[in-house]
Amino acid sequence: MTARDGGWWASAVEQVPGQRYGFSLFDGHNWSQLVPDPRTTEQPDGVHGLSMVSDRGFKWTDHEWTGRVLPGQVLYELHVGTFTPEGTFAGVIEKLDYLKELGVTTIELMPVQPFSGDRNWGYDGVQWHAVHEGYGGRHGLKELVNAAHNAGLAVVMDCVFNHFGPEGNYNGMFGPYTQAGSTPWGDIVNLSGFGSDAVRAYIHDAVRMWFEEFHVDGIRLDAVQTLWDPGAIHLLEQLTYLKNEIEATTGIPRVLIAESDQNDPRLVGAQQSGGYGLDGQWIDDIHHALHTLVSGEQHAYYSDFGTTEVLATTIKNVFFHAETFSTFRGRIHGRRLDTTIVPASKFVTYTTTHDQVGNRATGDRPSMNLSPAQQVLKAAVIYSLPFTPMLFMGEEFGATTPFAFFVSHTDPELLRLTREGRLNEFKRSGWSPEEVPDPGEESTFLASKLDWSFDSDQQQILEAYRILLRLRRELRLARPYLEHLEVQYDEHWLMFSHEDVAFVANFSADPVTVPVGGELVYTFTAPQVGEEETVLDAWGFALIKLG
Amino acid sequence: MTARDGGWWASAVEQVPGQRYGFSLFDGHNWSQLVPDPRTTEQPDGVHGLSMVSDRGFKWTDHEWTGRVLPGQVLYELHVGTFTPEGTFAGVIEKLDYLKELGVTTIELMPVQPFSGDRNWGYDGVQWHAVHEGYGGRHGLKELVNAAHNAGLAVVMDCVFNHFGPEGNYNGMFGPYTQAGSTPWGDIVNLSGFGSDAVRAYIHDAVRMWFEEFHVDGIRLDAVQTLWDPGAIHLLEQLTYLKNEIEATTGIPRVLIAESDQNDPRLVGAQQSGGYGLDGQWIDDIHHALHTLVSGEQHAYYSDFGTTEVLATTIKNVFFHAETFSTFRGRIHGRRLDTTIVPASKFVTYTTTHDQVGNRATGDRPSMNLSPAQQVLKAAVIYSLPFTPMLFMGEEFGATTPFAFFVSHTDPELLRLTREGRLNEFKRSGWSPEEVPDPGEESTFLASKLDWSFDSDQQQILEAYRILLRLRRELRLARPYLEHLEVQYDEHWLMFSHEDVAFVANFSADPVTVPVGGELVYTFTAPQVGEEETVLDAWGFALIKLG
Repeated sequence: MTARDGGWWASAVEQVPGQRYGFSLFDGHNWSQLVPDPRTTEQPDGVHGLSMVSDRGFKWTDHEWTGRVLPGQVLYELHVGTFTPEGTFAGVIEKLDYLKELGVTTIELMPVQPFSGDRNWGYDGVQWHAVHEGYGGRHGLKELVNAAHNAGLAVVMDCVFNHFGPEGNYNGMFGPYTQAGSTPWGDIVNLSGFGSDAVRAYIHDAVRMWFEEFHVDGIRLDAVQTLWDPGAIHLLEQLTYLKNEIEATTGIPRVLIAESDQNDPRLVGAQQSGGYGLDGQWIDDIHHALHTLVSGEQHAYYSDFGTTEVLATTIKNVFFHAETFSTFRGRIHGRRLDTTIVPASKFVTYTTTHDQVGNRATGDRPSMNLSPAQQVLKAAVIYSLPFTPMLFMGEEFGATTPFAFFVSHTDPELLRLTREGRLNEFKRSGWSPEEVPDPGEESTFLASKLDWSFDSDQQQILEAYRILLRLRRELRLARPYLEHLEVQYDEHWLMFSHEDVAFVANFSADPVTVPVGGELVYTFTAPQVGEEETVLDAWGFALIKLG
Repeated sequence: MTARDGGWWASAVEQVPGQRYGFSLFDGHNWSQLVPDPRTTEQPDGVHGLSMVSDRGFKWTDHEWTGRVLPGQVLYELHVGTFTPEGTFAGVIEKLDYLKELGVTTIELMPVQPFSGDRNWGYDGVQWHAVHEGYGGRHGLKELVNAAHNAGLAVVMDCVFNHFGPEGNYNGMFGPYTQAGSTPWGDIVNLSGFGSDAVRAYIHDAVRMWFEEFHVDGIRLDAVQTLWDPGAIHLLEQLTYLKNEIEATTGIPRVLIAESDQNDPRLVGAQQSGGYGLDGQWIDDIHHALHTLVSGEQHAYYSDFGTTEVLATTIKNVFFHAETFSTFRGRIHGRRLDTTIVPASKFVTYTTTHDQVGNRATGDRPSMNLSPAQQVLKAAVIYSLPFTPMLFMGEEFGATTPFAFFVSHTDPELLRLTREGRLNEFKRSGWSPEEVPDPGEESTFLASKLDWSFDSDQQQILEAYRILLRLRRELRLARPYLEHLEVQYDEHWLMFSHEDVAFVANFSADPVTVPVGGELVYTFTAPQVGEEETVLDAWGFALIKLG
């Protein structure tokens, strides 16, 4: 290879699809073993194997697809490996009709970049331009996107740009992909140090590839608060520019959605007012406010939440902590959001997510702890609010399989440390080692696979989800601005109304009387809806047309 | 003492001015030695000694003082310990008439917070609510501010909030003042971790004290790029709110000026457009563009600079690196500034600073390497541009005393490490240990004291500075917006004009002909100013009234 400007090396070797290759690097004394290409697009033998020149061809049949903007969407987060028995993209394709019938408009894939072994949530990805072979590889992903588009569904990919996985990351041998310091999950990605332009381009070109070559409709950006980028143009803003360019050249809208715990309006704020211009961001505060109220849990980051007042405040302000003290953080947190300017659709809300389930000691879902009425109550709140709702796979039928944390690192020492770390984390909150599933055991992964044989309770929950999502469309509950939403509450009930439609909910096991009546549109329990008031039974709700 | 909410402890002991006190802390096993109060306002025996309850009274006689906004100011940066033979605030008072006559409007004091020993630049301060006793303590500082105001001069204090000094910092025994990670100068100040509200309040209350109790007119915020504050409301924005409040309650304008190397318009941008709303920031790019052109130096962060084209670009854009590649940083740096919106006065410019002198191996000033014509040429450029100019003490008479790096740590190991670090830093760029002054020797400090006995060359330079600063006022060269400034250049000359006044400069030792003529207003050499063109002699400039 010959040296080029900027530390790059080039070779005149013709790239033939199917050709395996790797790099041996000279450190001044010795030549390294053959290692994969940081920009590899295909790793047939996993993260440690040789790279392969990809065949970029694909017979797309999604010519009718015109894309989707975030307003009006219903997202469905899924983990390819546990969503179906097959654990592949092909398996997901089998479920597209089911999802469409459910009322979902967009599937959101947990990360599919290559990781060590064959079992991983995906946040240990190391080769950011490639696709995990076990799921079906890059061809399989294209098949899925193509099929989804033909089924009328958009596809969002969860991408991790804030750290590299702990195993199989050879990038450091090629350049300064990381810099001093660390995130909770590994070295800081070098976005602002010497040589960082090439690292930003590595990310930038990955996003471009998913959009352009893979026809993907959106990227969910993992934990953006751990992107260490103090410079004058933040990576997220740069990605907005890229997205705008790709929208302009392809004529198809795309979305960028951040996961952030900073309660900072800057993320979705317009660029002319100093924002990063992202289309959306996840809102844990809505989750916490609702989850605590129904489950009664208040540990760790659930503290400060747990009353109808908090839920009402959060619905109106989106960020519950907005220049207010967070007990969990031990400091004032967040910033007030101007809900007269920022549309409600920019905020992705949910009754649960992979994290809210999987980061629990046993990976138990809300549906394993709550009654059907409680589960549907939570869903009804989320789907009747104007935010953009997201489901986590299986919640729609009250899945009773856990979603536990699992890995399959092939480095024994890393595996040992991961197991130990997991046990110690939960030991501190009183769990004994026997209670916490071993993340390294295949059985933990297998137990996390969804069981698609529903019992009658599950069938009822599924039906309720379908109805709620249909009513959301028919009653046009995704209204643009929160300022038009009226919210009232008492100790046990909460009511919100969009002009002609009211939603009333009882967050207790005892009946409550709510001073609003009208025509009952939908309920899951047996409330009494009168002309002037409604009596809600235990964990009951009613969607009411106002007179 | 009794425990209060939030980890505070209180005592009912009456506070009597003059009373010494300290705290002994119990770690669960033992009581500590008596240590000073983090919020001490007086340390009569230095950073390790007992604190003292201060007498807050002072007979202010500055009732006529109405304050100063940044536009129209001329700053003068000085180090109290080396500015005068006395090395005290009282010494500075003796020079106020001299400064006023020079044309300065504001003195900017290098940090005066307590540090270990009696010799320090001030960036090793540890007790942020107190004043170094050797300079005259808190009473001496009030005397200086009062005298300055009565002489018609404003006072800006340089404050370091990004790190604590390496010796005498007992704050960590009391609370989480720092958090994991480090700046080039020490631990990261905890602005965003658990318990950080109290640390922010520590800074906030210091700024309030300087403004309200000390009548200070402004704060220069040291190296703000090392403030680690990823939350939704940045400390700098918070300080702007505080400043606005104090302006409103006192009716006297104050200024906040950042030192930043990020070329980020956000710092001085309006808050409604996502900015922090600061009044000003230092602009090293203008310094580098000018310094390299006259000195010929291009090492380290001077690379990329050194031509008239770069100077012209920097004058027009303020940030030279604005989404462009910086060789020194090895990455794209900065962001374009909209000069039609941001007034030029927000940018503080200079021919040199304490850093540009003192961070050189021998602390040699430009005046020790340049001819009088070259020195005055640089000053003429700075004072004829619309930015806010700043002088570094002594440059106005071409001081031939160095301003070297000096410390007087009392901890021998720290002193050894500081000496070693300094030598190693310059060894890498080819300096031998004998050439670099020992930062720990008193002689290094003494040699850095200004010598006020001028020779005739120095008298001439001083006179030129006075004239340039007078002409800046008379010709109203501090025009608000850069868009009205015309800039032209050739390989060796540069010209800029504000409607009716042109400034032409020759950045070479050979005569050049510049295609602009008119009436000569001022020069330091002997150019020929014709009706249509001007012939500039070596390093010559001319300030010209256009016909």
